[in-house]
Amino acid sequence: MKHVKKVSRRTRVVTGGALVAAVTLGGFGAWSASATSSAPAAQAAVKADASNKNLTQSTRLTVDAASRAAQAALDAARKDNQRVSVAVVDRDGNTVVTLRGDGAGPQSYESAVKKAYTAVSWNAPTSELAKRLEQAPNLKDIPGTLFLAGGAPVSAKGAPIAGVGVAGAPSGDLDEKYAQAGVAALNK
Amino acid sequence: MKHVKKVSRRTRVVTGGALVAAVTLGGFGAWSASATSSAPAAQAAVKADASNKNLTQSTRLTVDAASRAAQAALDAARKDNQRVSVAVVDRDGNTVVTLRGDGAGPQSYESAVKKAYTAVSWNAPTSELAKRLEQAPNLKDIPGTLFLAGGAPVSAKGAPIAGVGVAGAPSGDLDEKYAQAGVAALNK
Amino acid sequence: MKHVKKVSRRTRVVTGGALVAAVTLGGFGAWSASATSSAPAAQAAVKADASNKNLTQSTRLTVDAASRAAQAALDAARKDNQRVSVAVVDRDGNTVVTLRGDGAGPQSYESAVKKAYTAVSWNAPTSELAKRLEQAPNLKDIPGTLFLAGGAPVSAKGAPIAGVGVAGAPSGDLDEKYAQAGVAALNK
Amino acid sequence: MKHVKKVSRRTRVVTGGALVAAVTLGGFGAWSASATSSAPAAQAAVKADASNKNLTQSTRLTVDAASRAAQAALDAARKDNQRVSVAVVDRDGNTVVTLRGDGAGPQSYESAVKKAYTAVSWNAPTSELAKRLEQAPNLKDIPGTLFLAGGAPVSAKGAPIAGVGVAGAPSGDLDEKYAQAGVAALNK
Amino acid sequence: MKHVKKVSRRTRVVTGGALVAAVTLGGFGAWSASATSSAPAAQAAVKADASNKNLTQSTRLTVDAASRAAQAALDAARKDNQRVSVAVVDRDGNTVVTLRGDGAGPQSYESAVKKAYTAVSWNAPTSELAKRLEQAPNLKDIPGTLFLAGGAPVSAKGAPIAGVGVAGAPSGDLDEKYAQAGVAALNK
Amino acid sequence: MKHVKKVSRRTRVVTGGALVAAVTLGGFGAWSASATSSAPAAQAAVKADASNKNLTQSTRLTVDAASRAAQAALDAARKDNQRVSVAVVDRDGNTVVTLRGDGAGPQSYESAVKKAYTAVSWNAPTSELAKRLEQAPNLKDIPGTLFLAGGAPVSAKGAPIAGVGVAGAPSGDLDEKYAQAGVAALNK
Amino acid sequence: MKHVKKVSRRTRVVTGGALVAAVTLGGFGAWSASATSSAPAAQAAVKADASNKNLTQSTRLTVDAASRAAQAALDAARKDNQRVSVAVVDRDGNTVVTLRGDGAGPQSYESAVKKAYTAVSWNAPTSELAKRLEQAPNLKDIPGTLFLAGGAPVSAKGAPIAGVGVAGAPSGDLDEKYAQAGVAALNK
Amino acid sequence: MKHVKKVSRRTRVVTGGALVAAVTLGGFGAWSASATSSAPAAQAAVKADASNKNLTQSTRLTVDAASRAAQAALDAARKDNQRVSVAVVDRDGNTVVTLRGDGAGPQSYESAVKKAYTAVSWNAPTSELAKRLEQAPNLKDIPGTLFLAGGAPVSAKGAPIAGVGVAGAPSGDLDEKYAQAGVAALNK
Repeated sequence: MKHVKKVSRRTRVVTGGALVAAVTLGGFGAWSASATSSAPAAQAAVKADASNKNLTQSTRLTVDAASRAAQAALDAARKDNQRVSVAVVDRDGNTVVTLRGDGAGPQSYESAVKKAYTAVSWNAPTSELAKRLEQAPNLKDIPGTLFLAGGAPVSAKGAPIAGVGVAGAPSGDLDEKYAQAGVAALNK
Repeated sequence: MKHVKKVSRRTRVVTGGALVAAVTLGGFGAWSASATSSAPAAQAAVKADASNKNLTQSTRLTVDAASRAAQAALDAARKDNQRVSVAVVDRDGNTVVTLRGDGAGPQSYESAVKKAYTAVSWNAPTSELAKRLEQAPNLKDIPGTLFLAGGAPVSAKGAPIAGVGVAGAPSGDLDEKYAQAGVAALNK
Repeated sequence: MKHVKKVSRRTRVVTGGALVAAVTLGGFGAWSASATSSAPAAQAAVKADASNKNLTQSTRLTVDAASRAAQAALDAARKDNQRVSVAVVDRDGNTVVTLRGDGAGPQSYESAVKKAYTAVSWNAPTSELAKRLEQAPNLKDIPGTLFLAGGAPVSAKGAPIAGVGVAGAPSGDLDEKYAQAGVAALNK
Repeated sequence: MKHVKKVSRRTRVVTGGALVAAVTLGGFGAWSASATSSAPAAQAAVKADASNKNLTQSTRLTVDAASRAAQAALDAARKDNQRVSVAVVDRDGNTVVTLRGDGAGPQSYESAVKKAYTAVSWNAPTSELAKRLEQAPNLKDIPGTLFLAGGAPVSAKGAPIAGVGVAGAPSGDLDEKYAQAGVAALNK
Repeated sequence: MKHVKKVSRRTRVVTGGALVAAVTLGGFGAWSASATSSAPAAQAAVKADASNKNLTQSTRLTVDAASRAAQAALDAARKDNQRVSVAVVDRDGNTVVTLRGDGAGPQSYESAVKKAYTAVSWNAPTSELAKRLEQAPNLKDIPGTLFLAGGAPVSAKGAPIAGVGVAGAPSGDLDEKYAQAGVAALNK
Repeated sequence: MKHVKKVSRRTRVVTGGALVAAVTLGGFGAWSASATSSAPAAQAAVKADASNKNLTQSTRLTVDAASRAAQAALDAARKDNQRVSVAVVDRDGNTVVTLRGDGAGPQSYESAVKKAYTAVSWNAPTSELAKRLEQAPNLKDIPGTLFLAGGAPVSAKGAPIAGVGVAGAPSGDLDEKYAQAGVAALNK
Repeated sequence: MKHVKKVSRRTRVVTGGALVAAVTLGGFGAWSASATSSAPAAQAAVKADASNKNLTQSTRLTVDAASRAAQAALDAARKDNQRVSVAVVDRDGNTVVTLRGDGAGPQSYESAVKKAYTAVSWNAPTSELAKRLEQAPNLKDIPGTLFLAGGAPVSAKGAPIAGVGVAGAPSGDLDEKYAQAGVAALNK
Repeated sequence: MKHVKKVSRRTRVVTGGALVAAVTLGGFGAWSASATSSAPAAQAAVKADASNKNLTQSTRLTVDAASRAAQAALDAARKDNQRVSVAVVDRDGNTVVTLRGDGAGPQSYESAVKKAYTAVSWNAPTSELAKRLEQAPNLKDIPGTLFLAGGAPVSAKGAPIAGVGVAGAPSGDLDEKYAQAGVAALNK
């Protein structure tokens, strides 16, 4: 089963649907005033039928799931009396949840984000990815990445959908243990 | 029907699926050496069944559809003898396609990206959104946005999924005409 | 009572304490290897007694409290069927918690952070602060700020200690309602 | 024949031409309102005759050619069932075309841009350039560059005019194979 | 005659030319070690004949011409006893020449670059462009621009090819007078 | 004794305190006009009692102490006839004091900040931390850090509270000697 | 008397001086290892005699003077029970001294730097400069500037040499009062 | 003789001078409207007499000298048929002159600036400095630096006052040869 699948018959959308969208337009975006939004032009809606090849869908963690994973990682660190920060990043590299732990070092916050980003980029724990630098050392020059243990990938249907990153413990192995605890919480 | 829907029974994923994922791991990421990737830990896969609330799905344009829209916008401008740049941005704000038109001004490229970003953020043409500044002028201080005509939203099932931005024509109205032409191409 | 108070007799620290610190050094920071950390030089510890004027203390939300506030803000938005992102920022401007809500616009995440930052900077709701621009319009040019409704301050002992920011609802007033719901959750 | 050549008699421009330029001024730039543009001062035009040494010309790919190359690279990757992003950069380092492939990792987009930039900077495939780091390791500290296989130069008349960059496949060699396929498409 | 013209028969390039390119490869780029550069693959060269539609050419000022213009602008300011900085930017927005004048304010350097950028983007003096903000105030939010008098466009064959920017004098009108003096020097 | 301790009975704050806060609101923030600030909503104050788990406190150097340390470091360098810059950074990574020494190299200012940041992040002198790179070389890719001798940590009660960084001397060992002199000044 | 004056006979330097420079080379820069620096090539020294037009000199505050001014500004604020941050910037826009005051808002630090920068750029208090925006509103788009009261210029021999910026008090007028107190301290 | 010397009796400035400054205020800064500048407060001037310890002076290249050096470097490269960019940076790290050579690679411009910055930071050719990385490899992580041959320092009175950077030739040795030619031009 593929990560990116064509939308099926069930997701069909017609132009009339776009007009409905206009009515509920206010529901999207940070629109910050008493809205009197006019309807977007009808042609802004993508006509979709069973043979539509315009659309694809991607799977992601809900914010609740991501938050639960992050909290679980933080709790695992606390059990070990470690002060860490935690981040969950989606497959597009967007940060979904961050937690700056009490007393965690200032460097831990952004480190956690980058570890999560790295894990989801290559769908592997960052401890594994750090080893790959022996063969391709310049991988670490890719913007957004950090090749330190502490990042764990989350996959669904065999494809990466998120990364959990932890930073701040005295070793990367510990960081990654907590990140994995975060991932594990998703299956409880 | 909602933009963000819970995954159904059909998208269920079991831990065994995660092991399969490990086998095809190389298929994801810019991994740049002869890969001997070890399997990610089994717990990295999200167990999903019919009642799974961990996952959600988002709809987006395929890169082919986005590219077709961008090309159509560029062609529309060319018919009018205008030199523009074009961008398509997805609902997460990621740039999917950019085209720097021959002879377009240097400011047009980033302008196109920001117009597309703005249109998808509020699911409305930027010509409409620019008017809203009368009531909420500080909206334009939100990073990534540009409140100039030339951005058109793309929606599916009543929800925004992409924005098309055009910049470089002598007026924003022209820019937006071309952006709308790009959106229209999605329904051909 | 003042926000910044001198540490009392109870927080006294002697040099011996610093040596103890050295032993548990590994417990701080993202130190990512099997640590064999040598002790920091003894003079790195600040000698503190009752008359010590070197030290001050600042109050902040625990990450658990900040997380609870953020979650409450998100839940309040969900009750209204709104898709938002939420951020909590401490008095030093550091982001403590972020939540990118399901289906929230791409602009909402950074907007939420900036609203929270603005609220804690001036210890007032951003809806109030936006009004102040009439008299001092250039306030909005201060880096990190966003003068849109949706940010609510958190204070303790009369001093600002955090800000909660929400973005993504169709109006700033709604955003701020959710932010206030987040703050209110701290007193439950 | 040189990359940078002096303009010949055929490109001569007189001041009268500048006045014509004023009339069609609106045709350049993202000028976003009903234009009533006044003529630029006559002295703003460069007088050029056969002996003019003020001007030079540079060759570049048309946006159509660049788009065709990018699409060809993406298609080549798809044939191998690989998910990649593609970028084409001109000799001045400007991004001309980008394509974020369906399901490509989040790190692939910017990686593709940087590989293309690197290839056009030194007019060599990035797989070659990565080897040069053995002798000059600090080359990789130059802003904008990425020394990973996957970038291919495009030259005309013996001079570099563009770079094609691909990222996201499990190895850089694969990335570069697709980039070369993109270049090859220019000669079809 | 158009700004962007298709390359004629005279610029034809064959694949053999690409091989020649390989030989002289070292001549391009900041390659910083004893070069033993291998030849780029033959397919990296764009085959070009009289009907080739892959290539286009853009006109620009030589660095010598740009330098002469910048120096003339600086001299004009000095005659008035004014301390300014000067920049020349090409049509792609690249800075070609900068001069930080003795005693010029710290803000003048980047201001000069942005004024030049703005002038070349819309092919008009920035004093004119500043007036256009009355109708389209958000134009000034486009990255890289500065809508203050002091920028003058340079055109050739009716198309913009460069901008000259000056900043640091007590009024923008003076700044623009010097910028125009810089442009005028191109025709001497 | 812990770095992060729960606030005791003595720091209790009631809602009434929040109203007082409103009265003195003007005292916080860079509010830059004749303030007529309305009171923040009462619920913006965190109710705190002896069992309150919402709040925590962190210890930091006063600005006077930080300034004295920075000055002492600068003086120590001057005694050796060295030209350096100095920075003090708090545990959250915020720069508290900077001094750009007369004649110090341009690179020294930011280097001092980063050394201080690195020292406080791992609570160890940067000379020690630089050695740790042998085992975990990618630590140096963490944003904000610089692994060069010259940074010294400041701790209180066994926990890091600040870092002092010095840069500009001909060797890092000298830089660190001055940084340590700065720390030592705190105990005089 | 001019701000920028030609160096007189007294500053003459001969090539032999350059060789001396080589010997003491270690004294400049953040060179961080046991130095075995070779002499810079002799031609690296500028031959200077009485008629030398290569060199100019600029006046600046010593770091001690700048530090005294900053401290005086902070003290003045404290007398009024205000929590502020302070910055001193030199004529080239470099930050010389910063002080983040205890309890000052997070936005105050960068605001102080920008106010100081603005004051020294135009050699006027920022309260005056803010008024000038009525006539030239786009001045505030110049990078690095902030047009809020609180910045005071320092001049010597009729030319600007530094700016003092203060931020964090409830009004800009207060901020500027403290900044002026900082300047005044230079004449005590 | 020292780089930083105290100002002598001859540079004395009295408060009356400050009033004169007010009159000629318009002569500084990019003040962009019909100026009606009020006088800065009298206390903004630093009282200076023979014993004044507030002021120091720094030596720098005039923009004319810097421009001549840059042009000489460019010419030297042209003689060798090399396409390069050139930059001159002052002791404070400010870019004074830049020249983007015809046909130089896109990476050459910023590389030249960074090489110049590096050379003036440590007062040594960057070819020398690159060797020092063997002992202190992390020096290259200092922001603004680039450890590639091609940067040459300029000194006066034994102290660094500027750096000349060249990039774009096939080897760093060539780049540095041209940079040295630029420095040499200062003594002609």
